[in-house]
Amino acid sequence: MQITRTLQELADYLGGVVHGDGAVRVSGLAPLDNAGPDKVTFLANPKYAAKVAETGAGGVLMAPGNERYGRNVIELANPYLGFAKLLTLFYTAPHPALGVLEGATVGSGTTLGEGISIYPGAVVGNNVGIGDRTVIHPGAVIYDGVTIGSDCVIHANAVVRERCRIGNRCKLQPGAVIGSDGFGYAPDGSSYYPIPQIGIVVLEDDVEIGANTTIDRAALEVTLIKRGTKLDNLVQVAHNCRIGEDCMIVSQVGIAGSSTIGNHVTLAGQVGVVGHVSIGDNVIVGAQGGVPGSLAGNAYYSGSPAMPHKEWLRTMGTLPKLPEMRKKLAELEKKIVGLEARLAKE
Amino acid sequence: MQITRTLQELADYLGGVVHGDGAVRVSGLAPLDNAGPDKVTFLANPKYAAKVAETGAGGVLMAPGNERYGRNVIELANPYLGFAKLLTLFYTAPHPALGVLEGATVGSGTTLGEGISIYPGAVVGNNVGIGDRTVIHPGAVIYDGVTIGSDCVIHANAVVRERCRIGNRCKLQPGAVIGSDGFGYAPDGSSYYPIPQIGIVVLEDDVEIGANTTIDRAALEVTLIKRGTKLDNLVQVAHNCRIGEDCMIVSQVGIAGSSTIGNHVTLAGQVGVVGHVSIGDNVIVGAQGGVPGSLAGNAYYSGSPAMPHKEWLRTMGTLPKLPEMRKKLAELEKKIVGLEARLAKE
Amino acid sequence: MQITRTLQELADYLGGVVHGDGAVRVSGLAPLDNAGPDKVTFLANPKYAAKVAETGAGGVLMAPGNERYGRNVIELANPYLGFAKLLTLFYTAPHPALGVLEGATVGSGTTLGEGISIYPGAVVGNNVGIGDRTVIHPGAVIYDGVTIGSDCVIHANAVVRERCRIGNRCKLQPGAVIGSDGFGYAPDGSSYYPIPQIGIVVLEDDVEIGANTTIDRAALEVTLIKRGTKLDNLVQVAHNCRIGEDCMIVSQVGIAGSSTIGNHVTLAGQVGVVGHVSIGDNVIVGAQGGVPGSLAGNAYYSGSPAMPHKEWLRTMGTLPKLPEMRKKLAELEKKIVGLEARLAKE
Repeated sequence: MQITRTLQELADYLGGVVHGDGAVRVSGLAPLDNAGPDKVTFLANPKYAAKVAETGAGGVLMAPGNERYGRNVIELANPYLGFAKLLTLFYTAPHPALGVLEGATVGSGTTLGEGISIYPGAVVGNNVGIGDRTVIHPGAVIYDGVTIGSDCVIHANAVVRERCRIGNRCKLQPGAVIGSDGFGYAPDGSSYYPIPQIGIVVLEDDVEIGANTTIDRAALEVTLIKRGTKLDNLVQVAHNCRIGEDCMIVSQVGIAGSSTIGNHVTLAGQVGVVGHVSIGDNVIVGAQGGVPGSLAGNAYYSGSPAMPHKEWLRTMGTLPKLPEMRKKLAELEKKIVGLEARLAKE
Repeated sequence: MQITRTLQELADYLGGVVHGDGAVRVSGLAPLDNAGPDKVTFLANPKYAAKVAETGAGGVLMAPGNERYGRNVIELANPYLGFAKLLTLFYTAPHPALGVLEGATVGSGTTLGEGISIYPGAVVGNNVGIGDRTVIHPGAVIYDGVTIGSDCVIHANAVVRERCRIGNRCKLQPGAVIGSDGFGYAPDGSSYYPIPQIGIVVLEDDVEIGANTTIDRAALEVTLIKRGTKLDNLVQVAHNCRIGEDCMIVSQVGIAGSSTIGNHVTLAGQVGVVGHVSIGDNVIVGAQGGVPGSLAGNAYYSGSPAMPHKEWLRTMGTLPKLPEMRKKLAELEKKIVGLEARLAKE
Repeated sequence: MQITRTLQELADYLGGVVHGDGAVRVSGLAPLDNAGPDKVTFLANPKYAAKVAETGAGGVLMAPGNERYGRNVIELANPYLGFAKLLTLFYTAPHPALGVLEGATVGSGTTLGEGISIYPGAVVGNNVGIGDRTVIHPGAVIYDGVTIGSDCVIHANAVVRERCRIGNRCKLQPGAVIGSDGFGYAPDGSSYYPIPQIGIVVLEDDVEIGANTTIDRAALEVTLIKRGTKLDNLVQVAHNCRIGEDCMIVSQVGIAGSSTIGNHVTLAGQVGVVGHVSIGDNVIVGAQGGVPGSLAGNAYYSGSPAMPHKEWLRTMGTLPKLPEMRKKLAELEKKIVGLEARLAKE
């Protein structure tokens, strides 16, 4: 069944203002280029402002101050956010409450909230708590003593090990592993004795974890991911790390043990952070960066070892000149020897 | 039961020509060094040509133009390919058609081809289509609305999320994830609003995906991997990427969102590609390379940021000389100051 | 039920010597800073030696030669190892023998040792051998013909493919994949023919494998991880590699095909090793290093391409000076031209 809404209804939903005909009815979203009259589109990048004149869309989300070209417009401060919210409205539906389906296993002492769904092949251990409307997909495994909040989605074959705690509205993509043993060994002559990892992992509310990402439990206490932080696929977070609020940790980043990341930090793809360091609030580290020590906040770093981004740009711009510089250096040396010889003769 | 074949049968199978006794019967393959008379061996690397004289093998696959040393030989253009095809012939068997085994779950509206096998612990959702002779191993999870072609192998604990489409003769290694949500968030003040990822992933025919590799579904449309492309283990492909035909994407490569890779491209291990760029046909990027922008085709690049491979070799060869160069530069500067002083005095 | 022990009992257990009151009874471990009288603590880092004076702990593990500040002390050569062993004593318990739980699948011809536990959702194939006291967690999949030793832990959703062999006291973290097909293809014109990977993986005793780590089976023979070696999360080991004894392979390391690693080697996070090379015993490669060729043993390397660590430190220290060096070089060149001109005039 297709959902339809008037532009006025959408404006009310998003807290925007209609210019033009608010009674126009739309049934979904489409890009500026190929939206028909039953679709709403959006202008987020000023580069495309002129396309508004040509679009066939029934309505356009845009920020105040843009030329409307006589279109029906919903004006709002953040049209990209509006677009995302309408995607949710038009194309997603609350998961039906299926209960515990045949082929799922639920242990003893476990409490399940209202409206939950637990699929075949999912295994939920003993003394687990699962909040309202949370969905556990096939093959996901929740060990004993875990708590998971409300409105979470645990995708297929994700694993949450014993006693870890997951907040509300968290999402684990398929294959994510929460609470694997930290990589801790005590040297014993030439071999290694495994140190029991008896801590846990805590994910606060609104944390999302990518596919096949791994977050190790703490040795003794807590590996912590704070509210709103998002981890992409194949990220590694080692034991005892603490990651702040609203961070974006992009795919294949690795963070070694006991490091602390501030709030609103972005680590781009394949960044590595050594252990026992601290990264300040609002830091950005560029792709493939290597962080060998603590980084002050409110700055953009790149490179391995990481340096301020502008310095890195200059350095990398010069790097390919290095062979030529070496040649030039040898030439200059020869010339200087020549000059010295001539001066000595005189 | 051991398979045996005559050299003539093998030559016919491979499209090669026998020199020597085609009636010799062999039962398998072995390296030049330790093959017995009931084994066939192969010469692919000219470096080992002299070993043909010594081998105990019943037959040798080789390219035309090599010295045969009186051996029974099957001559063919590509002996390494012939070796691979004989491995398949001697050592692999079609999977028996086991049907839906007890402990497997298959949803409603799902159609299964002939000769399929679905193992215990596998969960196939509703309205899925699975082609002939496809095998779904234990713990693999196929969400609703997926289609999978014929002669595919979905290994244990691999996951294919809703509505993704997989061609014929595709293989997913264990733990591979197809169709996880793309990493897309709209900034909302200091926090992030998750953008629904309503697109899909399409794998064309003959695509193979490595263990624990992750391929994100598109935001709106399609993340596409074209015919014949092979991805190694732990590779990350972000949403909306398009990878061409017959590419080799080696382990731990990461490709950020909306990037396009041409045909017959090789990305070596741990390469990173930023988002929204394009890589031309027949490109090779060396291991640990970082691709910060689009790359023209038919070329070999290395380094991070990536540069033409030969330039990179020269640069990396010079890099360890950098401290010495700096010292030299200071010396020359001092000498020049001295020369200038002497000239000023004169 | 809380375990308690006297200091004398603990000293006997660890092979240490009590100084002070060996009758003091403790029930667990805590850090120097916040240990109460019922806890034992430890001094491993000499930096914290003065804290012993202030600690409220009932006992302190320390190496001989430290100031005891009148505390009850257990003296032993390796207090960190002692701490790890007491963690095991106080906080871990042998897994109860649960047998084959309902919802688990065990194939035919499979032999199970005494005291094993196989959880719901685990699938063990045909002709598998599993040793005493081994635990197979939910969703783990053991293919046909595998052997697993005694006292192993196979965590949730780990996969061991056909015919691989796992020693005693091995641990697989969740999602680990042992025996996926090696990435081997024979070029066939512009496309690639998959080479059957008919070898196996062998893990010797006391090997531990991190979450979502992948170890490919050999093309023909064996991918080998020797006794006591530990692999962290998201590590890739390609086909035909051989890794020696007591190595530490940190997260996100990738080792390409047919490479050989010696004994007691440490590869730090995100290191890449190319194929067909050899790394000597006791080598350390620093984080994000790239190993392009064989490395002699008993040395510490860093960088990509890897060089001796001290050389790399000097090079990286100089790298940010590169733009300034280039500018200086241009200045000196100009000065030399000036000097030459002046000399020519004279």
